[in-house]
This record gives sequence, C-alpha cells and structure tokens, in this order.
Amino acid sequence: MDDITVYFLPGLEERSLRASILIEGLPGIGYVGKLVAEHMIEELGAEKIAEIHAVYFPPQVIIGDDGTIRLANNELYYYPRDGDGILFLVGDHQSGTHEGHYHLADRYLEIAALFQVQRIYTLGGFGVGHLVEEPRVLAAVNRPELRPDVEAAGAVFNRGEPGGGIVGAAGLLLGLGLTRGMDGICLMGETSGYLVDPMSAASLLRVLSCLLGIEVDPTRLQQRGAEMEQVIQHLIEGERVTRDEELRYFV
Amino acid sequence: MDDITVYFLPGLEERSLRASILIEGLPGIGYVGKLVAEHMIEELGAEKIAEIHAVYFPPQVIIGDDGTIRLANNELYYYPRDGDGILFLVGDHQSGTHEGHYHLADRYLEIAALFQVQRIYTLGGFGVGHLVEEPRVLAAVNRPELRPDVEAAGAVFNRGEPGGGIVGAAGLLLGLGLTRGMDGICLMGETSGYLVDPMSAASLLRVLSCLLGIEVDPTRLQQRGAEMEQVIQHLIEGERVTRDEELRYFV
Amino acid sequence: MDDITVYFLPGLEERSLRASILIEGLPGIGYVGKLVAEHMIEELGAEKIAEIHAVYFPPQVIIGDDGTIRLANNELYYYPRDGDGILFLVGDHQSGTHEGHYHLADRYLEIAALFQVQRIYTLGGFGVGHLVEEPRVLAAVNRPELRPDVEAAGAVFNRGEPGGGIVGAAGLLLGLGLTRGMDGICLMGETSGYLVDPMSAASLLRVLSCLLGIEVDPTRLQQRGAEMEQVIQHLIEGERVTRDEELRYFV
Amino acid sequence: MDDITVYFLPGLEERSLRASILIEGLPGIGYVGKLVAEHMIEELGAEKIAEIHAVYFPPQVIIGDDGTIRLANNELYYYPRDGDGILFLVGDHQSGTHEGHYHLADRYLEIAALFQVQRIYTLGGFGVGHLVEEPRVLAAVNRPELRPDVEAAGAVFNRGEPGGGIVGAAGLLLGLGLTRGMDGICLMGETSGYLVDPMSAASLLRVLSCLLGIEVDPTRLQQRGAEMEQVIQHLIEGERVTRDEELRYFV
Repeated sequence: MDDITVYFLPGLEERSLRASILIEGLPGIGYVGKLVAEHMIEELGAEKIAEIHAVYFPPQVIIGDDGTIRLANNELYYYPRDGDGILFLVGDHQSGTHEGHYHLADRYLEIAALFQVQRIYTLGGFGVGHLVEEPRVLAAVNRPELRPDVEAAGAVFNRGEPGGGIVGAAGLLLGLGLTRGMDGICLMGETSGYLVDPMSAASLLRVLSCLLGIEVDPTRLQQRGAEMEQVIQHLIEGERVTRDEELRYFV
Repeated sequence: MDDITVYFLPGLEERSLRASILIEGLPGIGYVGKLVAEHMIEELGAEKIAEIHAVYFPPQVIIGDDGTIRLANNELYYYPRDGDGILFLVGDHQSGTHEGHYHLADRYLEIAALFQVQRIYTLGGFGVGHLVEEPRVLAAVNRPELRPDVEAAGAVFNRGEPGGGIVGAAGLLLGLGLTRGMDGICLMGETSGYLVDPMSAASLLRVLSCLLGIEVDPTRLQQRGAEMEQVIQHLIEGERVTRDEELRYFV
Repeated sequence: MDDITVYFLPGLEERSLRASILIEGLPGIGYVGKLVAEHMIEELGAEKIAEIHAVYFPPQVIIGDDGTIRLANNELYYYPRDGDGILFLVGDHQSGTHEGHYHLADRYLEIAALFQVQRIYTLGGFGVGHLVEEPRVLAAVNRPELRPDVEAAGAVFNRGEPGGGIVGAAGLLLGLGLTRGMDGICLMGETSGYLVDPMSAASLLRVLSCLLGIEVDPTRLQQRGAEMEQVIQHLIEGERVTRDEELRYFV
Repeated sequence: MDDITVYFLPGLEERSLRASILIEGLPGIGYVGKLVAEHMIEELGAEKIAEIHAVYFPPQVIIGDDGTIRLANNELYYYPRDGDGILFLVGDHQSGTHEGHYHLADRYLEIAALFQVQRIYTLGGFGVGHLVEEPRVLAAVNRPELRPDVEAAGAVFNRGEPGGGIVGAAGLLLGLGLTRGMDGICLMGETSGYLVDPMSAASLLRVLSCLLGIEVDPTRLQQRGAEMEQVIQHLIEGERVTRDEELRYFV
C-alpha cells in the first residue's frame, strides 16, 4: 500500500471545486484547533470530500456507537463561498513519526495546490500549564506582510511565545507552504493544556471569523467541547490498556 | 530482501483453491484469538499452505524441542469445505512498528483477494483488568448490515467498548478490508488480559462456530491454553534476558 | 517530498564557486562547534548560499522575534578567499534518527564534492562533566599524515579520549569523507557539557584560526554564547511543554 | 548512499576465492562469539577482505590509539584451506533496528552465496545471570540432520534453552540461510552475561575446533578477553556521556 492514500468522494472531479483558503484543525494542545475546525464544519454545514489514510497514523480502527468501525484517518471538508470556497483539514491523529509529519504535510499542500489554495490558517493551542481567565490568541505568520491584518483581528504576536516553535502540521504547513508560495497564519489559543478547552476555542474562533469575514455562532462550542472531552478520555483510557497488552505480547 | 515475503507451499498454484472466509488469530490480548484459531486448525485438520516472513517481525529464530530453529513468522492454513474453504492466519508475532502493521495487513488482504475471500473474522481479546466469571464476546463490524447475524450468534455490541478502538491486525483487516469490499467482523473475548485465557476462548469459539455453521469440539481448549501459556512465559523470560543484553552491547 | 532537499540561492550556479575547505558546526556537546562556526560566519561576513530541509529534522518551525516562522533547517555559508573559499555548515538540528545521520552526512559530502572540497573540519565539544579552567582542544583525524599540523596548531591527541568515538555529523563527515578522498579533522573543545561554552569555543577558535591561517577576533564570543544560551533554554523549555502535550494527544 | 555498502579489497575479484564455511562472531551476550571469532582470525592469520558500512549501525566513528578514526563497521576475513576457505564475519555492532537486522543478514547471505558457502556457524553467548564454573556450549541447528555431529563435538541441545530463541545475526543467518539451502549451526557459550567471558569462549572454541577439524591455540584467549573488556567499558562509558548530551541538544 502507498504510505498515504487520499480517497476523494466520487464525482468530485467533475465539479472542479476551488478553495482559496485551507483551515487545519488536527489534534493538538488542548484540542483547541480541532474543536474550532470541527465546530465550524458543523455550523457552516461543510461537506466531506475526502478521506486520508496513512501508515503514519496508529494502526487502529475506531468503533462508532452502532458498533461499526472506521480506520483512524484525516478528512477534508469543503464549504463553498461565492464561486470560491474553504477547505477544512481535520482528523483523529497526527503522524506518529517525525518523518511522517513531513510527508503528510507535503501531501496536504499538494492537495491544497490542486484547489488553488492561497492562504492557510493552522489552528492550535498554546499551553501555559495553568488555567487562563481570558485566553489570548497568539499568532505566527510565514511572511511579515501578513502580520497587520492578523493583529487587527485581535491576535497578538509576543516575542518568545511559543518558545519551542510550532510542532506538527500546524507548523509544517506554514513552513513548507512558503516554498509553494502560500501565505500561512498560525493561530494559537492560550490554554492550560490539560483539557479540551472551549473557552480558548471561542477566543480563537472570534479572531478567525474576523479574518475570514464569516460569522460563526459560538453557542454550541461549550457542548461540543464536553462531548469531545468524553470521547478523548475514552480513547486515552482504552489505548492505555491496549498498549500495556501490546507491550506484553511483543515483549 | 523484500519487506514481506510469502512462501506458498509447492504445488499450491495448480490447485487453485478458493476460500470465501478468512479467520485471523494472531497474538493479542489474553492470546484469545490465537488460541481459538490454532485450536480450530488442529481440530479441523487444516493444512498449512504458506509461511510469511517480514522485516517487521522481531529479528529472531525460535528453537523447537528437537533443537532445530525456524524464523519467527506468520502462517496460512487452509480448510476445504464444499468446493469452498476457510483460510486461517496465525503466527508468532504482529508487527513491531506502526507502519509494519499497515503493510502486513495490506499484504494479508492481497492474499485474501487471491483466494476470493468475501468475509473476514478477526479474533481477539477484550482486556478488562480483572477476572471474569462468564466472559462475554464483544463484536464490531465494518458494515452495519452485518450486525444482526453476529448478535444472533451470541456476541454483543456495547457502546464504548472497547473504548480505544481495535489495534493491530484485528482492526486493520476490517478497516482496510472495507476498501476492498470485504465484510469484516471482529470478535473479542472478554478476558482479564493477564494470562492465556481458555475460558474466554471457549466463549468466542461458541459464537464463531455458530456464525460459520461448523461444530468444533472445545474439550481440548483448556489443555492447549496451558501449553501455550508455558511457551509464552518461556519466550517472555528468554526475551527479557536477551533484551537486557542487547541494551548492553548496543549501549 | 524528497527526504533531503537542498535549496541553493538563485544565481549561484553561474558563479561556479570553489571551496577547498568545509567547516561543520552543527549543534552538539556544549554547542561549542555551533558557537565557533556561527561566530566565524558573522565575523568574516560569510554569505548564505543554501538551505537544507530534511524529514530527519524535527517536524517544527521556529518563530523569529518579528513573529515570522521558518522551518527548522541546516544552512550553508560561503566565505571567498583568493579565488578559493570556505564553506560553513551550520543549523538548528542534527538528525533525529541513526539512518538520517548517515543520509544527511552523505548529502553534505555530495555538496562538498561539487565545491571541490579537499579538507573538512568538524567542530564539537568534548564533555567531561565538570567545569574546566583551561579547556584543551582534542583532535582526531581520518589520515595519520594530518596529525602533525593539527598538533602544531595547539590541539592534542589523547589516547582513549573521547572513549565513545565521535557521534553524528562531526564523526560521519570524517569517516564517510575518507571514502571520497577528503581529509578530515575533528576539533573538540573540552567543556562541562552543561551550558553553551564560550571559553571552550575560544580555545577551539584559536586552534582553527591557526590551521586556516585566518585571524578571527574572539571578543564577541562571550556575548554570542550568552545569546545562544538564552535561545536554547527557551527552545528546550518550549519543546518540553510541546512534547508533554504530544504524548497526551498521541497517547 | 545505499543502506548497506560492501567494500571488497582491490584485486579480490581476480582471485575468485571459495569458502564453504562462514563463521559469524558479531557482538552479543558476553561477547563470547566476538571473542572466539576475533581470536581465530588472529591465531590463524586470516586476511581482511571486505568492510561493510550500513546506515543501520550507530552514526559513529571510532578513534584508534593514534588518533585516526574509522567508521563503525563490520568486516570479512578470509582463511584459505586446501583450495577452499573459511569466511569470518566480525565487527563493532549489530543493527540498531529490527528491520536493519533482516537487511544485514540478507546481505551477509548474499555475500556467502558468492563464495559458495555451504555451512554457517554463528557464535554467541547464552546468558544465565550468574557465574558458571564449567560453561556448557549449547547448540541449535537449522536442519535436524546436523545435530549428531554437533553433539559429538561436545555441544548440548537442551529443550527450552535458550527459551527466547536466538536474536540478531546469530539467529537470522540460520533462519534465512535455510531458504538459501545453507546448513546452519549456532553455538552458544554459557556465560553470566556481565563481562567479556574468555572461559566461555574457550569452551566454545573447543567445540568449534572439533567441528572444523582445525586446532587453534586457546592460550591467548584470556588476554584478548581482558583487552576487549577494556575497550568495551570505554565505549560504553563514552557513549553514555554522548547519549546524555544527544538527549539535550535534540531535546
């Protein structure tokens, strides 16, 4: 099998969709990016257009409430807007290896180029290790010219934050996107990092809405965050058991 | 050498065997799946038709009672039935890496397609961390239509169990099998997870026999479980010594 | 994407630069090599001629003071001298895997061959675990004939130091360089290993200047070391947070 | 660079050497195999005919007493005997990854086939965790027909020893050699596993000499073992320092 396989939904080719914007919200610190992106997909009614399977994801299937399984994967959604559109990249996992991170990010950008994406927003959390009353939204860009608009929308640039740079898809899409001539903006909601953080997500959503010029109702963020937290706790616990066993039978 | 090599037994090609069913019982939680599959192979007198070597298995040979070694491997057995047949996939190990899990599962499905497999049963354990008096058999399927038959055979679907999804071959054969149009059913015997569990295996065997319409005598499961436990304890201990040493000379 | 990508600056091809010497100063023990090489680049005003991206580096972007990001990478600088020149290899990281170390070193040598490099200096630290008053400069060579000149410049060869050999680019460039017929000299500044060590760097710079016949003012080493220490502490802390989170969401 | 590179010494091709026997003595438990093989090479005056470099070895060079480095590698030596000969495979390291073990073993067998090797002896230690007064030599074979000769030479086959099978080159050369039609015998000297063990090596040498029909003076085994122990302790210590540092700068 190929290391990465993209399954576009049937009939997609004839529709020749365009999307000038890609929004990435894969799992990360405080699940802030994942929560914002999945919330937007549901509120805007974006349409699922692709599934992405990869040997870099955990070798695992996820069981739905009705007992049917599906492969751990990433997904693309499409939201049309004025002859143009927005792509959303969401999913269960990021790569489990450093090299896989690079190969996946490169493939995502290849897809983005097909849709003629010109600007990428990557969404994440910025973990501070303690609870935050009024979460800021930190930003980073891949060209200095992008900074004024991002600041005008309410995000802040703070020297040395985050000190460790940006790890995973949120960082690589910006860095590798630059070599393809795509603008890149990373928005990071301040968060304790311990729980799915709807409050941080609300702050981030406000900035992103402003940048996109799209109104998105934040009311159900709280509820979605609580549901996501449950699913994740379940996964974490279940995987811990599984991994302990794995250690045993691989000795 | 190729990453995966399949050695079919000589003369197999001319026989053009068909098998509409594949049963996977590789090592896993409580060795429930391995025990059931190897028990069925012996009770039914299934014939070994292939050996599978892979760089994803531990770099190790196993020493038999007569002092002769054989490579750690996976094996295929064939049981003929009414011009059709059943394939069994069993073996010493699963992959040691995430990527290897994917590549092995894909190769198993490629072989299954050669035999025109239409339905896959993957067998495993569901670890609960404590002893279980009357082990249930949990199930998951890759298409909702498969659920009624599985329930009628005595397996249960329980929302949120197992929470962590299904890891390894038992999961991937279902998930990747779907993209090849093969039905997939995973049966998981409830087990403490600490020992080879013949009681859990007996429950699983009952459900699987019913689904296959094949009577298999469970009497010797207990004894086979005890033998398997000995072999495994031996392996675990021996490998621990070896690994400690390995750490030393690779420092 | 390719595992390693080298982006030469535009117009470089027509200039057909030659460099008989390559100086490697990637991150390592006490950051001694990195400090010396980056100091020389700034003092000599060497020109950046290439960026090297690789899937072997951490999947990470680094945020500059103005909020713009850049991919973690390695870089080549060029300093012209009498129709000849010196190449400098510096960067953020070494490979994260053993295999990546080999592939990167091989690519660096391929580039060196393009520039007709005949001699390679690799710079590093030699960790002794305690503070050192007057740091020695230890050396190793890839041909015994190189030893006298190195000793004359003030470096010492001490049997059994360093006992563990030389790990990473500093070692491989010498070992693999030999098969390409390039002379190789590794200079290692004695250092505690705990901090960026400008004093050790000053000793190393003195030896290297002598070998190259180039005077380099050491005055600003102290200040550069302090700045580098800050950046690195920041990175280490930030990455620790990130990694803790990573562990959580990959569970 | 290729994952594995074999450098045969110049002029070797014209000599068209034959060797019906390959003896493997790479690092392993108690360094018993390494000690025996290197001792035989020196006592018999076998000639070095090849160096093997691989990305699976640690990315490291080793510094000799004169300050010159060489890549960590494996080596082949040749000892001629009556128009036939014996190949020795020795070296600094085994593979650092599971997959590398397979690829290296396969390459070694490819070389063996070039020399028309018919029988492989792999030498190792069998760690028991306590000091042994009169170390036995345990054996395993890849065809039952080989057993009587091995027993006649003084080695023992003991059911369940070693329980964990045989890991690394000593095992894989036997297992993969079988698929190439080569006989394989593994001899394992009983040893505590804590130190280089010349006494265990002497027992093993006695059995091997008998099987080969070659007298080899064991007198200097003790001294060679002591020297090897020193080198190894040095390496272990040095590498520990290096690795601690590595952790720091890769964070």
